Amino acid sequence: MKKNVAQKLIETHLIDGEMKAGMEISLKIDQTLTQDATGTMVMLELEAMGLDKAKTEVSAQYVDHNVIQEDYRNADDHLFLRSAARRFGIYYSRPGNGVSHPVHMQRLAKPGKTLLGSDSHTCANGCMGMLAMGAGGIDVAMAIAGEPYHVKMPQIMGVKLTGELPDWVSAKDVILEMLRRHGVKGGVGKIIEYYGPGLDTLSAMDRHVIANMGAELGATATVFPSDNVIKEFLQNQDRGSDWIELKADRGADYDLHEELNLSTIEPLIAKPSSPGNVVPVSEVAGEPIYQSYVGSSANPGYRDFAITAEIVKGKKIAPGISFDINPTSRQLLTQLSDNGYIGTLLAAGARMHQAGCNGCIGMGQAPASDRNSLRTTPRNFPGRSGTREDSVFLCSPETAAASALTGVITDPRTLDMNYPKIKLPKRAGDDGMLEAPPEDNTTVLLEKGPNITSLPGFAPIENNFDIPVLLKMADNISTDEILAGGARVLPYRSNIQRISTFAFEIVDDTYYERAMKARDDHGHAIIAGFNYGQGSSREHAALAPRYLGLKVVLVKDFARIHLQNLINFGILPLRFVHTEDYNKLQEGSILSFKNIHETIKQLSRFEVEIKDSNKSIQVEHDLTERHIDIILQGGVINWIKNKA
Amino acid sequence: MKKNVAQKLIETHLIDGEMKAGMEISLKIDQTLTQDATGTMVMLELEAMGLDKAKTEVSAQYVDHNVIQEDYRNADDHLFLRSAARRFGIYYSRPGNGVSHPVHMQRLAKPGKTLLGSDSHTCANGCMGMLAMGAGGIDVAMAIAGEPYHVKMPQIMGVKLTGELPDWVSAKDVILEMLRRHGVKGGVGKIIEYYGPGLDTLSAMDRHVIANMGAELGATATVFPSDNVIKEFLQNQDRGSDWIELKADRGADYDLHEELNLSTIEPLIAKPSSPGNVVPVSEVAGEPIYQSYVGSSANPGYRDFAITAEIVKGKKIAPGISFDINPTSRQLLTQLSDNGYIGTLLAAGARMHQAGCNGCIGMGQAPASDRNSLRTTPRNFPGRSGTREDSVFLCSPETAAASALTGVITDPRTLDMNYPKIKLPKRAGDDGMLEAPPEDNTTVLLEKGPNITSLPGFAPIENNFDIPVLLKMADNISTDEILAGGARVLPYRSNIQRISTFAFEIVDDTYYERAMKARDDHGHAIIAGFNYGQGSSREHAALAPRYLGLKVVLVKDFARIHLQNLINFGILPLRFVHTEDYNKLQEGSILSFKNIHETIKQLSRFEVEIKDSNKSIQVEHDLTERHIDIILQGGVINWIKNKA
Repeated sequence: MKKNVAQKLIETHLIDGEMKAGMEISLKIDQTLTQDATGTMVMLELEAMGLDKAKTEVSAQYVDHNVIQEDYRNADDHLFLRSAARRFGIYYSRPGNGVSHPVHMQRLAKPGKTLLGSDSHTCANGCMGMLAMGAGGIDVAMAIAGEPYHVKMPQIMGVKLTGELPDWVSAKDVILEMLRRHGVKGGVGKIIEYYGPGLDTLSAMDRHVIANMGAELGATATVFPSDNVIKEFLQNQDRGSDWIELKADRGADYDLHEELNLSTIEPLIAKPSSPGNVVPVSEVAGEPIYQSYVGSSANPGYRDFAITAEIVKGKKIAPGISFDINPTSRQLLTQLSDNGYIGTLLAAGARMHQAGCNGCIGMGQAPASDRNSLRTTPRNFPGRSGTREDSVFLCSPETAAASALTGVITDPRTLDMNYPKIKLPKRAGDDGMLEAPPEDNTTVLLEKGPNITSLPGFAPIENNFDIPVLLKMADNISTDEILAGGARVLPYRSNIQRISTFAFEIVDDTYYERAMKARDDHGHAIIAGFNYGQGSSREHAALAPRYLGLKVVLVKDFARIHLQNLINFGILPLRFVHTEDYNKLQEGSILSFKNIHETIKQLSRFEVEIKDSNKSIQVEHDLTERHIDIILQGGVINWIKNKA
Repeated sequence: MKKNVAQKLIETHLIDGEMKAGMEISLKIDQTLTQDATGTMVMLELEAMGLDKAKTEVSAQYVDHNVIQEDYRNADDHLFLRSAARRFGIYYSRPGNGVSHPVHMQRLAKPGKTLLGSDSHTCANGCMGMLAMGAGGIDVAMAIAGEPYHVKMPQIMGVKLTGELPDWVSAKDVILEMLRRHGVKGGVGKIIEYYGPGLDTLSAMDRHVIANMGAELGATATVFPSDNVIKEFLQNQDRGSDWIELKADRGADYDLHEELNLSTIEPLIAKPSSPGNVVPVSEVAGEPIYQSYVGSSANPGYRDFAITAEIVKGKKIAPGISFDINPTSRQLLTQLSDNGYIGTLLAAGARMHQAGCNGCIGMGQAPASDRNSLRTTPRNFPGRSGTREDSVFLCSPETAAASALTGVITDPRTLDMNYPKIKLPKRAGDDGMLEAPPEDNTTVLLEKGPNITSLPGFAPIENNFDIPVLLKMADNISTDEILAGGARVLPYRSNIQRISTFAFEIVDDTYYERAMKARDDHGHAIIAGFNYGQGSSREHAALAPRYLGLKVVLVKDFARIHLQNLINFGILPLRFVHTEDYNKLQEGSILSFKNIHETIKQLSRFEVEIKDSNKSIQVEHDLTERHIDIILQGGVINWIKNKA
């Protein structure tokens, strides 16, 4: 049978299951990636599991999300991550080395391999002919411990690229065009595979841009072939020997089909506050801006910054505009400096920031109230910029640079200049400050500052219990509402006791206190509507409520990653069979669970009594045997310890 | 009479008073400087005063302290400052342009002029043959409004420089030597004037380093002559026509005398947690460090960064060390980039940060718990780094770079290399992003985001009142303890109601609540030991307690700037006549003030009864008629409004 690239990657890593869309499969994971916001917890999980040494081929811990260091906690986290990386045989990328995705691509990615990362943009490395997927932190901890990764076999959508991008249009516009056509749910349950003659005109970093924002389509992964473009990229990194060819068989087919003629794409922009809100730049041209921001893993390449510099060269940006340059890696920053582009950008009025995620995840560069911010970042969800009621547009570096010059949103084609051509530097990469783990890792001690605490142990769920509903929530509750990110909360990511004080704070600031009270009894349940747990993959959104005694989450339906996180921490996830039963419950209702251990094994639907009401509701689940086993042992850490 | 430089500067600006040490004089102010942490308040004060247009020759508003922008507040502050600068006819230096002191020196400083700035390191511009002094924000607001500046005529200490600095020793070691000899109070009530043949070997920026940390000696100002070194500096900035010669008359004398033979100075270091804690580097060599930090207004020059780069060139910094480069200005960063030094630093493992104050004032780059941080910054007061129990050493760039390479405190003379020679770039400056105010400023509107509130009005002090002592504090309480800087507090600098919740939090976190309670009655008093209010000039340290009802501050003695700030906001500052009376009072003691309006006018010493104790204490003040007038009108804003 003729196979496409995605099928080849899955087949060579398949441990269990059948490659039929919708069926659960398990895959061998070759590489993992963690960043600091999720990684401290992953390291604490590895400690709790009693891991000796990473069982993957390559695991890497990056520090990119929080590199401000406003107090000791952030700095202590960095020291802890370094010590844990050394202890568990993991590469450590220091603060200032840059964003995980481009650095991993430059230094560690290998065609033909699988990569699991505790960051939703891990899919970016699909540009390298890899199967690269984002997951919850504990899934990544499991992969580091040698466990396969379980996922539903996706459908594979082939996107045929033809033609060539016109002047002033670049890779960002390609993925914005995909978002314009398919929206933010268009990739759910799918792997998107790009192929066709148009590929030859896209550099490895261009493909990174497209693969990265596959996350915004909701796709499980994005896959590109490993061709001569990738070979050359690896050779420039002094890693030519890591290259293998990986292409679809001639005549291979896809489950779904799409075609993009690159020649017809125009400069596009995602309006506030969704990456799916895409229109031509010309449609919003003239809107005044406060900020033009270039950087992030969605436009991480040398080209992206060099073209920005070429556009503003010898000019001054508009008065009062904040023109923020967030370089994505130390390697890139060095190359830009070597070629004079840093000087060019500064002379035009740019603010140069440290290499890292920075404003892309709300760690600095927040826009002013009621002002438009133009960004090359991947997401413009409300408040993600750090400013609660923000107004963020997503666009290409060309559009951002043109708009910085004029002070209003500007279609770069209307600038009175020729489209600059950028020559990519032919320069061997340098591992620089990416530290390899020591040969002998067993003697390394974990360095825990006062804000870093070991994970609390969790008891398995009881067989019979009555618990109150503490929260009743609407549809589309995101993990940001369950447990916020940002500068107030992130510093406590290694301190479950402390971070749990922020749980559901945005929804109901009495939750923490009420949950702590119920915790001494049998804990509590929460209920919600559709799409519960959408957004960021952060597992603290499961772990913190679990610490506060959350036992059962009963909703109309779940977002995929959060559902997995609930299972991983031994919380029972249930759905209403009849969504109107949602109305039968309110805060304070007591749910009575009887003989639950046997019930969930034997029945996928069962009744739950509402105490003192003569009423009951029907609930359902589609937990696998493995899921049930994990929940009944109190979560995956107990499960893996019991297994060893 | 033969005059020294300080006398010439004072004489040409004297409006009132006699040039006798200790007598109050008033001076015409030619230039002002404000930064963002103090500037928002200055602008709100100009608004409250109803100012039309700045009456100085040059006023400039810099944004350098808080440039992180974690949310809308910081960005809104920047927009407000820009609009206010334009409204009041003031230059505006954008975020990313750099630290006020070096930028002002490069672009606006003029020999022979007076400069008043709402930043305690304003004295740095004394390197330019100016009389440059730090003051409270409201003093600067008054100067902008055309009022003279009142100060006690200082003694003038002449420091004769001879010899030439040895290899591996630089300007920072000169000022550390002064601190070693004279301590943090050695300059109180003095102007320090450098002269002699050793001057010729010190560049303009070297002199900036020495003048800057005159603040750490407690000096009112530091003065250098304007000679050919300054002429060349200005010519390189395309400002040759701003130069005038200003030298001491041959044979001019000084009130006090000191001599430094530069040839005998060795690498020095200030140990935690005072800039006066100076020892030779060799004495602490070998201590492990977490961080090496180069930057700040205490080492802002091209040379300081270039020498750092030359020392680490082609090498890698020690594993696990955070090597933070905080460039001080856009101009500097551009020059370093143009000459390849940014690439050199990055390759060695440096983290490049945005131009600004950053970690020097606790806005990022905080060290880890229980680790040593080596910094070229001017101050190492406890907690100023952002980490509460920090361990910060102050040193030269040479020592910082050498230690980054070895991972332990290292005397740079022990490195196995020749001392690099740095050639200063001959490049015309560029006003770049320093925006001149518009010709017609009257139509500019102030842009106030939701966190910016107008100043509350304050009632004058009553004539008879009983108030409790709410705090009893020891010696050397700094303004950082009265009202912390840093990332938690700074965002509220334009919101008195909110920022006052942090007042004295470090000393006693029940203060706010107790003060708010006493406020509805007659307010309260506080008592303290010697040197009360040392450190940063931030006037919020007077304004916030005033908002909370602080009426009387009774101490053994005051730090100069804070004393002025107390008067400016209508708080009565008193000293114990007998310092042992400090022991008669405790928290909760009630002080009974009778007929205070007449008493302070007529008596510089008087009795205050301690209620219900049959005891009383003798207090004193040396308030001038003008001071008393200001206090009795409730502060200087009422005073200037009543005057107009």
